[in-house]
Amino acid sequence: MTGRNSGDGPDRNRDPNRNALWARVLVDELVAAGVDAVCLSPGSRSTPLTVAFDRHEDVHVFSHLDERSSAYFALGRARRTGEVTPLVCTSGTAAANYHPAVIEASQSRVPLLLLTADRPPEIRDSGANQTIDQEKLYGDAVRWYRDVAEPEATPRKLRSLRTTAARAVAKATGTPAGPVHLNFPFRKPLEPTPVEGDVPADLPAPAIEGRDGPFVDAAAGVPELDDDALRELASELSEPRGLLVAGPADAPGLDSEAVAAFAHASGFPVLADPLSGVRYGGLVRTTPVIGGYDGFLGERVREAWPDPDVVVRVGASPTSKPLRKYLAAVDARQYVVDPAAGWREAEFTATDLIVADPSRLLGRLSRLLAGPGSDAWRERWTGAEAAHAAVLDAEDAFCEGRILADVVDLAPDPATVFVSNSMPVRDLDRFGAPTTGSLTPLGNRGASGIDGIVSTALGAGSATTDDLTLVTGDLAYYHDMNGLLALGRCDVEATVVLVNNDGGGIFHMLPIEAYDPPFTPQFVTPHGLDFGPTEDLYDLSFARVEGEDREGFREAYAEATRRDGSHVVEVVTDAESSHEVREDLRQRAVERVLDETT
Amino acid sequence: MTGRNSGDGPDRNRDPNRNALWARVLVDELVAAGVDAVCLSPGSRSTPLTVAFDRHEDVHVFSHLDERSSAYFALGRARRTGEVTPLVCTSGTAAANYHPAVIEASQSRVPLLLLTADRPPEIRDSGANQTIDQEKLYGDAVRWYRDVAEPEATPRKLRSLRTTAARAVAKATGTPAGPVHLNFPFRKPLEPTPVEGDVPADLPAPAIEGRDGPFVDAAAGVPELDDDALRELASELSEPRGLLVAGPADAPGLDSEAVAAFAHASGFPVLADPLSGVRYGGLVRTTPVIGGYDGFLGERVREAWPDPDVVVRVGASPTSKPLRKYLAAVDARQYVVDPAAGWREAEFTATDLIVADPSRLLGRLSRLLAGPGSDAWRERWTGAEAAHAAVLDAEDAFCEGRILADVVDLAPDPATVFVSNSMPVRDLDRFGAPTTGSLTPLGNRGASGIDGIVSTALGAGSATTDDLTLVTGDLAYYHDMNGLLALGRCDVEATVVLVNNDGGGIFHMLPIEAYDPPFTPQFVTPHGLDFGPTEDLYDLSFARVEGEDREGFREAYAEATRRDGSHVVEVVTDAESSHEVREDLRQRAVERVLDETT
Repeated sequence: MTGRNSGDGPDRNRDPNRNALWARVLVDELVAAGVDAVCLSPGSRSTPLTVAFDRHEDVHVFSHLDERSSAYFALGRARRTGEVTPLVCTSGTAAANYHPAVIEASQSRVPLLLLTADRPPEIRDSGANQTIDQEKLYGDAVRWYRDVAEPEATPRKLRSLRTTAARAVAKATGTPAGPVHLNFPFRKPLEPTPVEGDVPADLPAPAIEGRDGPFVDAAAGVPELDDDALRELASELSEPRGLLVAGPADAPGLDSEAVAAFAHASGFPVLADPLSGVRYGGLVRTTPVIGGYDGFLGERVREAWPDPDVVVRVGASPTSKPLRKYLAAVDARQYVVDPAAGWREAEFTATDLIVADPSRLLGRLSRLLAGPGSDAWRERWTGAEAAHAAVLDAEDAFCEGRILADVVDLAPDPATVFVSNSMPVRDLDRFGAPTTGSLTPLGNRGASGIDGIVSTALGAGSATTDDLTLVTGDLAYYHDMNGLLALGRCDVEATVVLVNNDGGGIFHMLPIEAYDPPFTPQFVTPHGLDFGPTEDLYDLSFARVEGEDREGFREAYAEATRRDGSHVVEVVTDAESSHEVREDLRQRAVERVLDETT
Repeated sequence: MTGRNSGDGPDRNRDPNRNALWARVLVDELVAAGVDAVCLSPGSRSTPLTVAFDRHEDVHVFSHLDERSSAYFALGRARRTGEVTPLVCTSGTAAANYHPAVIEASQSRVPLLLLTADRPPEIRDSGANQTIDQEKLYGDAVRWYRDVAEPEATPRKLRSLRTTAARAVAKATGTPAGPVHLNFPFRKPLEPTPVEGDVPADLPAPAIEGRDGPFVDAAAGVPELDDDALRELASELSEPRGLLVAGPADAPGLDSEAVAAFAHASGFPVLADPLSGVRYGGLVRTTPVIGGYDGFLGERVREAWPDPDVVVRVGASPTSKPLRKYLAAVDARQYVVDPAAGWREAEFTATDLIVADPSRLLGRLSRLLAGPGSDAWRERWTGAEAAHAAVLDAEDAFCEGRILADVVDLAPDPATVFVSNSMPVRDLDRFGAPTTGSLTPLGNRGASGIDGIVSTALGAGSATTDDLTLVTGDLAYYHDMNGLLALGRCDVEATVVLVNNDGGGIFHMLPIEAYDPPFTPQFVTPHGLDFGPTEDLYDLSFARVEGEDREGFREAYAEATRRDGSHVVEVVTDAESSHEVREDLRQRAVERVLDETT
């Protein structure tokens, strides 16, 4: 409870005026609460915040010129680490550029801290320049909003600011994690110029210096069932045929040891979404991890197999539509486990909602479960997984999905692999079979946008020493081309696999394909862009693989991951033929699964 | 009141299902209300809207891959025309990408109509894919929001939809004009596939066909003072020394004939913001239009001159800070005229607010005013204008402001000249002297962001046969580089003058310059980008002028405007030396004005 520098009183060089003091105190408290990086965009009104972050030696500053890209970069970093990442921008529409990433962060529970500078209250709604209504700018998409008090060097106000900083971090990393917005009105002078009397000499040291460590230490529990409810649940789960469905995980991810223990104790196969955090890694050695379900589940398999008795679902709704439809159709007791009471199950077939931390719940259940379930049931799933893999191996027709299989195969170990919406994540789901490699796939599945993909990937890369691969379609690459500036500017290296089918390939999967026009001009929207010149604009090398040359891609990708620097490997594909090959492989897989498991 | 096609009943080809009918009826009514263009972005959920717009032969479709650019393009078009421009996007973060442009449209009173597709109500907040909370997504930045009813082919629902369409256009073009948001839930099938019974055969023709012309004809008056109040105001304005200050105009602009009549009757000089719509054009021949005030107004001139007795302010707050400070300091009765009761005066020195349409008010006042005011007062202003112009002519030191003077000088007639924030609009204000040319300067001065500039300019260009010039700094060019795709894709031609000082030149005008670091890395933010490769990415030619070569720029710019196609003329400048030259010219201008007018 003593001050960091108690007894010294205000330091006029460090805190030359109230704005500088205010911003320095904020940054000190954020760092005390664990913040180690910030994404700054240039602007005048945010000067006190920018200066304070820049001057703090424990903060890594990432500078971004496009606020939309900045917010996605912060999102990627926070998604990879689970730690809150703050952003700073000036007043006006700059802050609105954060909105898409704020929504993604809200939906996928990633901790962001939006620090927007604002004009002082008296000139709001007065026609003053660059002054907009920033209050509650992101609506219900943030976990907490405060219009922070105007800077003033009084003990109570400074305590309120320190508390606000601690509380903002706690809110952003709470259950569910998510974005928090603090709006900071500042009046001139914004730069750290001395202002006589602005920071009174007799201000008590605790107000100026805070405390050792955080001003307020925030400890938060996670929801846990009581012992009786847990025992009851364990007994209900002691059925021959069960499934653990691991959807996309909330940052920082699901505890794979808890999953392994649960799978072992329950005998349940683990249907692991590519973004669940448990499809790749050591778990695969000891546990029946199923990754191919998107390629064979459907009405025929469901009808041929017995239904599961119980399903335990953790994480967000699975990426795989065949899996979601399967779960909606089976006659099973379905437990949706969510620590934030999210009811994330849009088919409305769940029978039970359990508000509990999934990793802790699975770990505790594993110590109570009675038996290993039905071997035949487990073998059905592992057999189907093997049959699906065998079909993919036996066929050599090219499709975009092969690219994802190859990335999983060839990515250096360890690697973070960011997959874009709309097709790459689906192709990873279907073609990216479980492996023991240390692979961390990430995606923006909260709102599943194709915006901000490049920046989210690079932000994730900025937080890890893993090799970084981004797999993106051409529309997403174009949408956030500005994000490529971070390669040089933020010192991140990446291998970008650019699957270029000249437009929206996913639309070939939809019935609108039959209506052309408007199918081609308004849905596929071919743009004809030659992305080669991004090599000269940004800090990267550019290679192109044409002719659906799988070996060519494998060589180019492997080479790119071996070399220093950032590389784009563009693969020119045909969306329609890829779609046909995907469908053909799916038909064959279903046949083979039926053959071998029934 | 008869149907367009009365008696025919539903047409199964045209209206194969309720979604197709719903979207077709919406588009029919929008067209009946005057809509002639739409900005579409690809997506699945928006399929009914996309198909309906694409099929309507009276709608020009602009297809944009980046929704942020799309919204700014629509903004530019609506700003140029004053007509409402609708936008369509799919569900999810796509809609949030509109937010920056929505705020700019709200602040600068430009009519936009945001048509966002949404998932059906029952799956909102259920973890369903690409489903976010789109309700009131833009908060208070829209004039009207409706979560539109789910499509259904019943007479009352269809009447409600037709009324909603008419009302949305009326709201968007009302007083003040601005953005309107309609959120459209759709469930499958989204494509125009026949659905038996979806559109009942016995649906009455009026429900299906609407009426001849708009379903509801909306007529809106504008605020006008009653005769007594007007006479009182005219008498109060009959003073020797008055000023008419025309700030940035609301679309579609101020009536220059009314301004001329008022100036003639009152004897007031017209201080015309570059975005007022009255600095350039025929008015200049007959009326004392002052454009150089930003270069000479200040404390010294104010002290040497008598104060004005009365000031009439129309439009938004002027771009010029010296003018705003002058108006705050003088002891004058100040009338702020605003049709939407906007109180757009952030120095709070106004004495009177008049809620009235400015063009009508000026026109009516011109018929009542008693006398021409003081000749000496008017000559002070015209003398100062001439003195300022003479200083600019006499000096040949290069600065960025010269580029704007040259564009005003050389732009083809007629031309639309879009000027970016932050420096180009200020340089136009100071260096772009009034001329009789048919020049329409436009800018985004609602929120004064540097985002979306390229797209806003191209959107404005799409609405006019004028030659189009965009003057932008490098940060704004980078920020909306995606917008350049519209050159080829939306068939717009432009000459882009890219003033490249490698970062945020405006910060050299601010006191933070003395603190380096962080001045250079966090404020100027030099990026070192070579924009030359945008030539290969987009449909444009690229030329670079180096060495502060004014003649070289003039030649390159004139040449670019003569040639077909789109051209970037990059001028490499030094922000710091430009800033010094600006200051030096200002000092000289002040001296000369004092010399010649006192």
